[in-house]
Amino acid sequence: MKKWLLSVAVAASFASHADEGMWQPHQLPAMADELKAKGLEIDAKSISKLTEFPMNAVISLGGCTASFVSPKGLVVTNHHCAYGSIQYNSTAEKNLLQDGFLAKTFADELPAAPGSRVYVTEEVTNVTERVNAGLENKTGREFYQGVENQEKALVAECEKDEGYRCQVYSFHGGLEYYLVKQLEIRDVRLVYNPAGSVGKYGGDVDNWMWPRHTGDFSFYRAYVSKTGKPAEFSADNVPYEPKSFLKVSAKGVSEGDFVMVAGYPGRTNRYRTANEVQNQFEWAYPEGKMLRERFIEIIKETAPEGSDERIKYESQIAGLANYAKNFTSMIEFYGKSTMLADRKAREAELAAWIAKDSSREAKYGKTLSELDALIAKSKAHQERDMILSYIGNTTMVPTATNLYRLAHEKQLPDMQREPGFQDRDMTRFKASMERIDRRYAPSVDKAVLLDMLKRYAALPEAQRLPAMDKAFGIDKKVNEAKLVKTLDKMYAKTELGNKDVRLAWMEKSVDDFKASKDPFIQFAVAMYDTNMSEEKKEKELDGELMKVRPQYMDAIIAYNREQGKPVYADANSSLRVTVGHVKGYEPKDGLVAKPFTRLEGIVQKDTGVDPFDAPKKQLELIKQKQYGDFYVKAIDSVPVNFLSTLDTTGGNSGSPTLNGRAELVGLLFDGVYESIIGDWAYDDNINRSIQVDSRYMLWVMKYLDHADNLLAEMEIVK
Amino acid sequence: MKKWLLSVAVAASFASHADEGMWQPHQLPAMADELKAKGLEIDAKSISKLTEFPMNAVISLGGCTASFVSPKGLVVTNHHCAYGSIQYNSTAEKNLLQDGFLAKTFADELPAAPGSRVYVTEEVTNVTERVNAGLENKTGREFYQGVENQEKALVAECEKDEGYRCQVYSFHGGLEYYLVKQLEIRDVRLVYNPAGSVGKYGGDVDNWMWPRHTGDFSFYRAYVSKTGKPAEFSADNVPYEPKSFLKVSAKGVSEGDFVMVAGYPGRTNRYRTANEVQNQFEWAYPEGKMLRERFIEIIKETAPEGSDERIKYESQIAGLANYAKNFTSMIEFYGKSTMLADRKAREAELAAWIAKDSSREAKYGKTLSELDALIAKSKAHQERDMILSYIGNTTMVPTATNLYRLAHEKQLPDMQREPGFQDRDMTRFKASMERIDRRYAPSVDKAVLLDMLKRYAALPEAQRLPAMDKAFGIDKKVNEAKLVKTLDKMYAKTELGNKDVRLAWMEKSVDDFKASKDPFIQFAVAMYDTNMSEEKKEKELDGELMKVRPQYMDAIIAYNREQGKPVYADANSSLRVTVGHVKGYEPKDGLVAKPFTRLEGIVQKDTGVDPFDAPKKQLELIKQKQYGDFYVKAIDSVPVNFLSTLDTTGGNSGSPTLNGRAELVGLLFDGVYESIIGDWAYDDNINRSIQVDSRYMLWVMKYLDHADNLLAEMEIVK
Repeated sequence: MKKWLLSVAVAASFASHADEGMWQPHQLPAMADELKAKGLEIDAKSISKLTEFPMNAVISLGGCTASFVSPKGLVVTNHHCAYGSIQYNSTAEKNLLQDGFLAKTFADELPAAPGSRVYVTEEVTNVTERVNAGLENKTGREFYQGVENQEKALVAECEKDEGYRCQVYSFHGGLEYYLVKQLEIRDVRLVYNPAGSVGKYGGDVDNWMWPRHTGDFSFYRAYVSKTGKPAEFSADNVPYEPKSFLKVSAKGVSEGDFVMVAGYPGRTNRYRTANEVQNQFEWAYPEGKMLRERFIEIIKETAPEGSDERIKYESQIAGLANYAKNFTSMIEFYGKSTMLADRKAREAELAAWIAKDSSREAKYGKTLSELDALIAKSKAHQERDMILSYIGNTTMVPTATNLYRLAHEKQLPDMQREPGFQDRDMTRFKASMERIDRRYAPSVDKAVLLDMLKRYAALPEAQRLPAMDKAFGIDKKVNEAKLVKTLDKMYAKTELGNKDVRLAWMEKSVDDFKASKDPFIQFAVAMYDTNMSEEKKEKELDGELMKVRPQYMDAIIAYNREQGKPVYADANSSLRVTVGHVKGYEPKDGLVAKPFTRLEGIVQKDTGVDPFDAPKKQLELIKQKQYGDFYVKAIDSVPVNFLSTLDTTGGNSGSPTLNGRAELVGLLFDGVYESIIGDWAYDDNINRSIQVDSRYMLWVMKYLDHADNLLAEMEIVK
Repeated sequence: MKKWLLSVAVAASFASHADEGMWQPHQLPAMADELKAKGLEIDAKSISKLTEFPMNAVISLGGCTASFVSPKGLVVTNHHCAYGSIQYNSTAEKNLLQDGFLAKTFADELPAAPGSRVYVTEEVTNVTERVNAGLENKTGREFYQGVENQEKALVAECEKDEGYRCQVYSFHGGLEYYLVKQLEIRDVRLVYNPAGSVGKYGGDVDNWMWPRHTGDFSFYRAYVSKTGKPAEFSADNVPYEPKSFLKVSAKGVSEGDFVMVAGYPGRTNRYRTANEVQNQFEWAYPEGKMLRERFIEIIKETAPEGSDERIKYESQIAGLANYAKNFTSMIEFYGKSTMLADRKAREAELAAWIAKDSSREAKYGKTLSELDALIAKSKAHQERDMILSYIGNTTMVPTATNLYRLAHEKQLPDMQREPGFQDRDMTRFKASMERIDRRYAPSVDKAVLLDMLKRYAALPEAQRLPAMDKAFGIDKKVNEAKLVKTLDKMYAKTELGNKDVRLAWMEKSVDDFKASKDPFIQFAVAMYDTNMSEEKKEKELDGELMKVRPQYMDAIIAYNREQGKPVYADANSSLRVTVGHVKGYEPKDGLVAKPFTRLEGIVQKDTGVDPFDAPKKQLELIKQKQYGDFYVKAIDSVPVNFLSTLDTTGGNSGSPTLNGRAELVGLLFDGVYESIIGDWAYDDNINRSIQVDSRYMLWVMKYLDHADNLLAEMEIVK
């Protein structure tokens, strides 16, 4: 991102070299020459059409990306994307996570975890005009609500077509809106996963690290009813026949080769202002890191290793630690970077460009200052907001709050309800209420809530919420003993720990809640008016931002257009394409990361102890140099993982990495530690994505797991 | 080491490629062709003569190596080798360690720490025949004592020449003995050291690590009396004029270049038997690592951070941690290596070679089995011996024991005393008694001793020593409370914590000790007979080993001679030469360590917090690309540190690294983590020494510290 405000001459050279950009498919035809020069062999137009090969083979699992690799609905994605389903099907006796799993016939395939979905994007429609229609004179919350209403209407209309899930995505902060219509396949089955010691080799230790040796791949299959419609799991269902599927390359890629990825990246922040950058890196990340680390500490103190409580929280600990590590990297590399100065320079250049022309001045002259004023406003009580958001990550408080909100929302017609509380959301809502049983221990929840409340109580009075203060007896001074007593009572008395009780509350009325003696329900009732009025203020501000930020992006786009440079939107979980090359990097002065790792690296890392405990048979095969069909002379081994310059982020996991002929040469599953900050600014020198090599996938399938049925089913090309 | 038993054909190719070997200078002329092929430009004979250039410019500081770099006795060595002297001259007001130090004139130079020495090797004489004379029929302890007596006589005779320190070094376990005569310069002064944030940049974090950016160099000057003789510090002394000195290269080396090092490597174990290897790596290193880590824990628990006690133990903690890390690496890489299998194969090959010829069979047929039997014997109570050796690292017990031993030894004529208790040792002995004040806290000493005694008490009775059991009231079961009480009393009552008391005991008689009420003195008296009888047994065994191990080495040498391959002896702190090349390596699959680091890496690592807090001025110079005269185009910067294949170990620190013309191109100061195990087996692929580049030294001197006087004094060549 540093580079996009360089002078035209340099920018032109940049445009043909750098691999930055998460492009909307429709942008690609305009870039055809550049893509061809980089190494794309197929027609650029073909990757712009979502309903044609290869894009229609790329699917979403919701949070992960995947792709069809056979005409019979066989789906390949990351092992970590199928993790929940592998775990769901594992028992102490038959531990698929540990031992791996291979269905030798369709009948042996296992139902994926409840809620597993395959989303096939079938239509993407620009709905900007419809979303904005009639909202020209609206501002603030009215504008916000207007947009939300239009979106809900668009979605409802789209979802009338049974078996589809629809969503409106906002691009450039609201400059454009696209309605995405996806076939929602609900019968998903687990077909094959290698042993955990292959699929998550290196585990958390190697997370975000290079050199990497993870066999992060697994296979699902999508099933539909006999009539070809999405349906719940049924033995009568038949494999879904996708419009197209990807060929799998046994030839793979070499250093310097062109690669591209189609997938669903979650969120980037490449166009945030200097003020937002500074606040995020100098306040929000350090604060978030501290809170996450404290959160982990409390869980570990309260739930000692080996306890039942600890087991329930292992996954939350992993999630907290994952992002604490992410934030640590953010802070570290921000300190070493010139990001803030670059953003300021970019804003200054943009301002200078705007000032040079009176019509531009009229259009954009106040945009940045207005944007910054709104951003400043949104920070007014960010300390409180962050604490409340972490309280939102505990269990009892948000459970009660959400249930009571539901009772209120249900009084309204479906279309007027808050998103998340509409009929279409109830399957997920119910699942979230059920899931609590596996993830909740009162002792831990109480300890974490106590810590967060103490932090809340220490805030200046102006930031605190009277209703909250009253509910927990918080006064000018924190009386910890009293707070502990209050919480002890609340957790002792509440019945929300019981699943049946929670599900029963989903059906109850506002009056039922008001009459309840359950302390958390009472808390939710007591907070309701405050929550609503805070939400109202927030929507007011969001509405303002939704008017100003698109203006700002419009200025940026216009400025770039003048230089002949396309602008891609920040990631928003919609389908994007990114192109790049197979390439190593220098993580530090004096050290070079090579683009490929080799089978031998697995033996080198192996300690016999998780997460470095490759299957004995695999170690033997490697020691005996049983490279088979996948030997690569250049590295004198079989490649395991490889690096690329592809511009990706979370959500891209499982994305097929394709060569210039759109053959699958790998699966994207991670980025290197140095590129975490890439969510804010892509840097050619250090932004690297990590892929599992198709040749390693095939090697494991052929020689270790003998997945001959799948090898026969896929179309493997040399 | 894996390679030296390969077949002749392979061995021949090995001989011309690998850079293994710590050669005695007299071995080099025979290797002249190989050395020339590798890149040596000067005559191989010249580096075999200790009294000629360049070898007579290479000196020992006792534990470190150094070299003369001017006709006026200017000495360059590592910053960490001069550390004690820098610390000694630092005060809170004038912190040379922190700020650096530069004497602009001779008069400004500061006395080095007490006991600092410069040893100039002047003669090395093969005294094997004299040592063994008349001992043909002696065995066991008699043989041991015979050798020791001959050595003492040789040393005494040699040291008659005033100003010299002499020592007999045993090679190949006693196959050869060399008497080394060194001029002992006692007036050593600190001339120049860069700031600590240059000289120990990276500190313990980067210890044994690559990439490295440490400016590990400092300068001393050697002074002698006006008549040119070694003398104590005096203002009248004059700079020593060495017979030769090294030129310093401003041109430096490039990747692949020939380099060589002359220095004093301490100890290697390349010829230990498979049984010794297995015991060391599978028992001694893990046990030692555990004890060291426990030792550190106890110190930290007993002496909290910031306490006076802690300050006294910081250096011991660092030493313990340093070797705990060393042992960790040893264990890790042993697990990954085939070292044990290689040793066994080597022994089998040797045995096969011996068996092939009846005269060899007669000479060596029983050697290995005899050696292994003695090794087995020496392991009989190794658990106890290790605990006792760690007790020997506490303070009160060994202080009392050594003082009482001195009283006994002083009853004997000087030449009959145990080495370490002779008149020539008294300066060091006294210094060790004085030093205790700075390194001893009763609370810590007691806590560590308690822990070790509990471990001792848990040993099988057969391993325990009755006198020791009695002294600490150790019975079948450990009564910890009783033990604590005993130690509390001992530490409360002892007066050995007082320096004057300790020094006074140096003068007292055996009877004085016997009459003492000091509990540690009483302990020493109570243990004396046991200690003596254990020592006797040990010498008996050592005497046996000194007969058998040389036979084993003789067989190895004969076997290699047949293949035209010279054998170098294990390191023993005597002067050695090793030759190699500038070369990176692959620390792990997927990662390449480049041979040079660059100035920019300093900025990259810098956090502003010790040990990554380079001087602001240095960071500025680098950011402004002020490379000056030392810019190297190939790396677009000034090189900071470089890697070489040189075969080195502890004791080599400060060694001059020379190019083919014997010009100083760097100072050796460390090895990489992967090569720690190299003390047992050199591996071409991962054994790498780390040097500070002469160009970085000169850059720091010229642009950062303006040491113009020294730059003018040295002979700098392009």
